[in-house]
Amino acid sequence: MENVYVAILGLGTVGQGVAMMILNDREIWAKRCGSRIILKRTLERRPERRLDVELDGVVRSQDWRAIAEDPEISVVIETIGGIEPARTYILEALAAGKNVVTANKELLAVHGQELFAAAKAAGRDLYFEASVAGAVPIISALRQNLSGSILTEVMGIVNGSTNYILTRMKREGLGYGDVLGDAQKLGYLEADPTADVEGLDAARKAAILATIAFKSQVTYDDVYAQGITAITAEDMAFAEKLGYAVKLVAICREQEGKIEVRVHPALLPEKHPLSSVNDSFNAVFIRGLGLDKVMLYGRGAGRMPTASAVMGDVVEIVRNINFNCQGRLNQVYPREKEIIPMADVKTRFFLRFILTDKPGVMAKITKVMGNHGISLDSVLQKELGDGSAEVAFVTHLVRQGDMDAALAEIREMDVTREIRTVLRVEGAEA
Amino acid sequence: MENVYVAILGLGTVGQGVAMMILNDREIWAKRCGSRIILKRTLERRPERRLDVELDGVVRSQDWRAIAEDPEISVVIETIGGIEPARTYILEALAAGKNVVTANKELLAVHGQELFAAAKAAGRDLYFEASVAGAVPIISALRQNLSGSILTEVMGIVNGSTNYILTRMKREGLGYGDVLGDAQKLGYLEADPTADVEGLDAARKAAILATIAFKSQVTYDDVYAQGITAITAEDMAFAEKLGYAVKLVAICREQEGKIEVRVHPALLPEKHPLSSVNDSFNAVFIRGLGLDKVMLYGRGAGRMPTASAVMGDVVEIVRNINFNCQGRLNQVYPREKEIIPMADVKTRFFLRFILTDKPGVMAKITKVMGNHGISLDSVLQKELGDGSAEVAFVTHLVRQGDMDAALAEIREMDVTREIRTVLRVEGAEA
Repeated sequence: MENVYVAILGLGTVGQGVAMMILNDREIWAKRCGSRIILKRTLERRPERRLDVELDGVVRSQDWRAIAEDPEISVVIETIGGIEPARTYILEALAAGKNVVTANKELLAVHGQELFAAAKAAGRDLYFEASVAGAVPIISALRQNLSGSILTEVMGIVNGSTNYILTRMKREGLGYGDVLGDAQKLGYLEADPTADVEGLDAARKAAILATIAFKSQVTYDDVYAQGITAITAEDMAFAEKLGYAVKLVAICREQEGKIEVRVHPALLPEKHPLSSVNDSFNAVFIRGLGLDKVMLYGRGAGRMPTASAVMGDVVEIVRNINFNCQGRLNQVYPREKEIIPMADVKTRFFLRFILTDKPGVMAKITKVMGNHGISLDSVLQKELGDGSAEVAFVTHLVRQGDMDAALAEIREMDVTREIRTVLRVEGAEA
Repeated sequence: MENVYVAILGLGTVGQGVAMMILNDREIWAKRCGSRIILKRTLERRPERRLDVELDGVVRSQDWRAIAEDPEISVVIETIGGIEPARTYILEALAAGKNVVTANKELLAVHGQELFAAAKAAGRDLYFEASVAGAVPIISALRQNLSGSILTEVMGIVNGSTNYILTRMKREGLGYGDVLGDAQKLGYLEADPTADVEGLDAARKAAILATIAFKSQVTYDDVYAQGITAITAEDMAFAEKLGYAVKLVAICREQEGKIEVRVHPALLPEKHPLSSVNDSFNAVFIRGLGLDKVMLYGRGAGRMPTASAVMGDVVEIVRNINFNCQGRLNQVYPREKEIIPMADVKTRFFLRFILTDKPGVMAKITKVMGNHGISLDSVLQKELGDGSAEVAFVTHLVRQGDMDAALAEIREMDVTREIRTVLRVEGAEA
């Protein structure tokens, strides 16, 4: 049995988890892939730091060149995160004939095309299962296992922190602000929660999912992103009353050769499989010709779930090394399909307005909507007693641009006291 | 771009679906795997039969030898089903250097070991994604994508017909017999429904799942199987009141190097991810070290979902052919792990007894249970007014053998009028 030498770049939470797995279960990996996996080197910014794992016999250093130029190392595991130096390290590792495993969604969402091209040119593997939804094998599903279907939709709950917040808001009748602090205290959110709560983390994952699902480049900049910070306890209660759950979803669809890709909170019907995905769990719901619908569900984050996804990639790559077929999944995904501008995306809406409570007001509002091609699925009206009324609408499908125009007009009307909620409604057909 | 020639054995529902996919979307497959996939031959018992697909340019025949000896054919797709002649064809195809895709659970559950060994000896691929849970990529997950985890449990709803029946029983408050006829009329069940309703189909799938999850041979004969025919509307109502759904589950677990594998109806807590898998959908829930828990959900049967799973295997195999790495996933799975006898399996139970309604009766019954090491989680008692009382118990974990002994004793007691229900309770820890 041969040895396969690997290096881990970055010994943060995930990097240490991977080191533990490699070192603790050597016989298992050897049996699974036919070679001994040896952790030879680590790259650490602070090699003096105390770790949760004993790295006996591992060369720890701050010297990337020593790794890049070590001909024995055939797999480089990048768990640094962020754009640089991760990007340079990965490109240099591939150029040096090494295979790469990365969990780096920031990098893939922006420079994916460059990395895929480098892997293809080098004839080496670039695997990235851990970049989206942690232990949920969604990347493999889209790159390999669902290759027998032409996919039309990938819709996911791919940010565990926001799903945790929304789940608690629903269960406890709380507003966003009430749960935020708790989520931070419990470690579900970074000190600066912006990337999570504004939907930016999910947007990175959406770019990766859309690219490999539809085989055409989609980058972070292509993704419309809106977060959950404006969602109130009232919104949650209204949604529940109407039979919906509010979820932060990444939606990727291909229609007639064009791609729509967006991240925002949405009302999903209670019976939609994503509606019962709670707490910090992730799930991705997929539609495709032939397969109809499939959902994958599991832990989207955390040291060991993420390390397990990384380790699965390592095992697959070692199998490829042993059969001398590295690069067998390489595809470059040039941008062949247009991204639909957000204004042209069609969706349904849930709207809550506070209006002057006078005869003819509803007629005025619905006339404006009608002028913009908006038709209504349902209306709930409630007098507030102070001369105003609260009206909630669910619309049929409407162009985002038409809705924006209608809302701009309604906002300026005398009878409009407040546009309280504008949320999209998705998943009706699932 | 090279041509890869394939043959389809058996043009039933699934075989025709695969033919449609190959013929209708040639450019897509070529792009995905780097070769043109050409359907060259079919093997049909009745080649004069009218098909739903036009097989222009395809050689249709009843002559297996012509396929086995055609050196151009490198992938054989077996959709005949059953043991023979499928077994012989697959063995001969592998021996002739061809790769094989099969959806044949009957064959794999009994002769898997022989087929895996033949594939390994030939250095060719044997793929079987469609054999369990149709379009749900569970085989790939267990053979490849979850290779970074040491799995401890695979629990699945892998028979769509029975899940359809149980879903309707629950929704409409009906008994098994009330729904059976409808399920047959709607095509959810064969004319002879035995394999589905007695859990035999699910047992075949359990054998396959357990083998590849725990890397040790498990065959159909190893699997304890009990069906759904004894479940009543009352059972469903009781379960619901207690917060459970009744599902036919295939349970595969590894504990301390031993495997338990069984198929039976079970009460699952409402919040267990499998509890909300309804209608004819399939799902497989997996636990493993590192990954925690993962669930895969989707269509378990039907022409196009199954064909899509087969097609995914074909695409993967063609990728392997192009990189000359056929056989990279081959493992023989010798029987290294003992199968735990059903009597030694530990589970919780839901019991319903009709007892004489007299003082001291409960004490007698619970004393017998206590003597056999059975402790109770909850008890519900109801007087029936005819001098008898109905008592429902949920137990803590107990050895199946101890429960059997206790039940045998209780059955013979004067105070026992009827043992009405004995169902297992699973998934409490999920």
